[in-house]
Amino acid sequence: MKCTGEFDVRDIDECCINIDPIQVGGRLTADAMKAVIAYGDGYSVCDQCRKPFRLDYIRTPPLDQFHRDLAAFVNMDVARVVPGARRGFQAVADTYIGKGDPVMITALSHYTEVLAIEGRGGVIREIPKNGENIITADAAAGTIEQVVREFGRPPVLLFLDHYDYQYGNCHPVSDIAKIARQYDIPVLYNGAYTVGIMQVDGKGLGVDFVVGSGHKSMAAPAPSGMLATTSERAGEVFRTTGIRTDVTGRTFGIKEVGMMGCTLMGVTLMGMLASFPHVRERVKRWDQELENGNLVVETLRSIDGTVIKSEYPRKHTLTRVDTINSFDRVAKTHKKRGYFFSSALKERGIAGIIPGATKVWKFNTYGMNRIQAEYLAATFKEIAEENDLVVSR
Amino acid sequence: MKCTGEFDVRDIDECCINIDPIQVGGRLTADAMKAVIAYGDGYSVCDQCRKPFRLDYIRTPPLDQFHRDLAAFVNMDVARVVPGARRGFQAVADTYIGKGDPVMITALSHYTEVLAIEGRGGVIREIPKNGENIITADAAAGTIEQVVREFGRPPVLLFLDHYDYQYGNCHPVSDIAKIARQYDIPVLYNGAYTVGIMQVDGKGLGVDFVVGSGHKSMAAPAPSGMLATTSERAGEVFRTTGIRTDVTGRTFGIKEVGMMGCTLMGVTLMGMLASFPHVRERVKRWDQELENGNLVVETLRSIDGTVIKSEYPRKHTLTRVDTINSFDRVAKTHKKRGYFFSSALKERGIAGIIPGATKVWKFNTYGMNRIQAEYLAATFKEIAEENDLVVSR
Repeated sequence: MKCTGEFDVRDIDECCINIDPIQVGGRLTADAMKAVIAYGDGYSVCDQCRKPFRLDYIRTPPLDQFHRDLAAFVNMDVARVVPGARRGFQAVADTYIGKGDPVMITALSHYTEVLAIEGRGGVIREIPKNGENIITADAAAGTIEQVVREFGRPPVLLFLDHYDYQYGNCHPVSDIAKIARQYDIPVLYNGAYTVGIMQVDGKGLGVDFVVGSGHKSMAAPAPSGMLATTSERAGEVFRTTGIRTDVTGRTFGIKEVGMMGCTLMGVTLMGMLASFPHVRERVKRWDQELENGNLVVETLRSIDGTVIKSEYPRKHTLTRVDTINSFDRVAKTHKKRGYFFSSALKERGIAGIIPGATKVWKFNTYGMNRIQAEYLAATFKEIAEENDLVVSR
Repeated sequence: MKCTGEFDVRDIDECCINIDPIQVGGRLTADAMKAVIAYGDGYSVCDQCRKPFRLDYIRTPPLDQFHRDLAAFVNMDVARVVPGARRGFQAVADTYIGKGDPVMITALSHYTEVLAIEGRGGVIREIPKNGENIITADAAAGTIEQVVREFGRPPVLLFLDHYDYQYGNCHPVSDIAKIARQYDIPVLYNGAYTVGIMQVDGKGLGVDFVVGSGHKSMAAPAPSGMLATTSERAGEVFRTTGIRTDVTGRTFGIKEVGMMGCTLMGVTLMGMLASFPHVRERVKRWDQELENGNLVVETLRSIDGTVIKSEYPRKHTLTRVDTINSFDRVAKTHKKRGYFFSSALKERGIAGIIPGATKVWKFNTYGMNRIQAEYLAATFKEIAEENDLVVSR
């Protein structure tokens, strides 16, 4: 069905059970959809913008309160909205990293963290993962010490993904942050896969910055996200402009340099805001989400030759699975080759797996109800059996 | 009317003639509204993202073609979408400005250009405006020479606003760019008030970068915008990542450092895309827009004591007006004080003027039809007459 003359309507989440790893946490709530319709116009939140002319001071709609709510949501002191988690990384990187400074990430860090560091000329040092694809506190301590030996000083910043994008494995942020604190290294918590789907306690974890993604995990339109910090760090990352221009002597009030002034002036922020009451509730139901995810994982494990590459049992709904010795074996002789799998899923109303992928792939069960999870599990089993793979009970 | 439990529906552009200076060019087209509804979900444009996994390579929806269309639209070679014009400024600033480098702006530059420079530690030098609030080529030449004397080298970058945000005056970009070229200074054309409402010929103007705002002038949701450049400069501002991580040896393909990877992965880009065929047509009707604007301006001039602070006759629909000796005189004795004016406008269905403003204020007639412009002009006159101001024929 055409949406405009140029492109089709998107109805994947209306017509299918979508298991795309990056999309499931960003589906709009019904309230967000209403907000998107009402606030679609550019600069739609600026009607009541008054002195001091900054997004987080606007009272109608209640953006000022929302900023406070966001900070409290992750148990930090101050929060700002940003056009995607990556822009939160960028703002923090810009604040702390100078050319040649050592910066630590992990072996499972997201590429946007790398770009944020590269943009400032930082030198990246990775904390290795262990055999189970976990970043341990011991490994972190080792890498810090190695940086101190190499650079004569600790890293200026440490990026930690609580759950990584590759395996959805849980990494011991609190333990690592404790070590970082001994060296006064500011810690950025990448909550792209946590903030908005499970409870996050920034101060409890001992981190300096909590970054979340609106379009990945907060049921918001893209690009959106949040950056929260402590009152100690707020003056650094949210520093206001200090420029006085030479000819006109202009100054620019309390505009924040790292935020580039106002950030989300319309539909993206209103989508976040509208979804927020629902997001705040849904994080409490993470256990149910895990149960659904583990149900599907169990079924996949019962298909002979299938290996769960993520830690097991699962602590996240995003899972990496190796089907080289199951579905990929089918692909070798199937007339549709590798496409048989995504095609069989699609016929049964499952979307979100890259067409042709039968070796190592990821899926995410977030947001399903029990019936959908059971259906998904049964579908994997059915496709396996249909193609003469052995399925144990 | 409530939109969700937390905030009201926004219907200002449905119920009123909105003359807010920053909002009129960013109202969605009907097609953009359809796109916003269909593509509201986060990461909604990523369903068909395949290798090399970058936004401007996606074919369904036709984002690859749209990127080419955007470049052609402003007569440049390469374009990217960005979360607001300010993020375009930031990407260019990050590419060319080092700490202590002299950077030129104008006495009428937007604050986001200042923040982009401040973020990189650049030293700002302003080209002064003349008595008519125009940035002349002579003044630009003078400031370049002054920078050369002061710093021993020309500025590393020059930001030029074709039409400034304060007066909506037209500045001789082409003449200034010609001078800048003699010193090899890259020129960034700030088209926040032009790209999407009038025709822009980047190469014709001789500039290196064209930045446009989606939510300000391209009938798109916020935050959105574009950054276009020449094939010569593209490799600099759109440089791809060169990092290889130390432990895992990971590289990140053709992700662009200045863009932080992908930029607008959903509703904002789809709004831009849906509006684009209409935007491409509407820029040809700029003359009609100017006629409407000038009709209103003429009426304001006929109100005794009212002074048009912008250049006259108007070359833009954004106009700055001084009513200290007309409407503000009324405010001194009116029982509603300064609020009488916005209140009288509101009663007559005109929105977008800051409540209480009666001294120096701005309005923008962009997007009105003739009947609306006539109504707006008649309304100003009526409010004046009702309050015993003299209106000449």
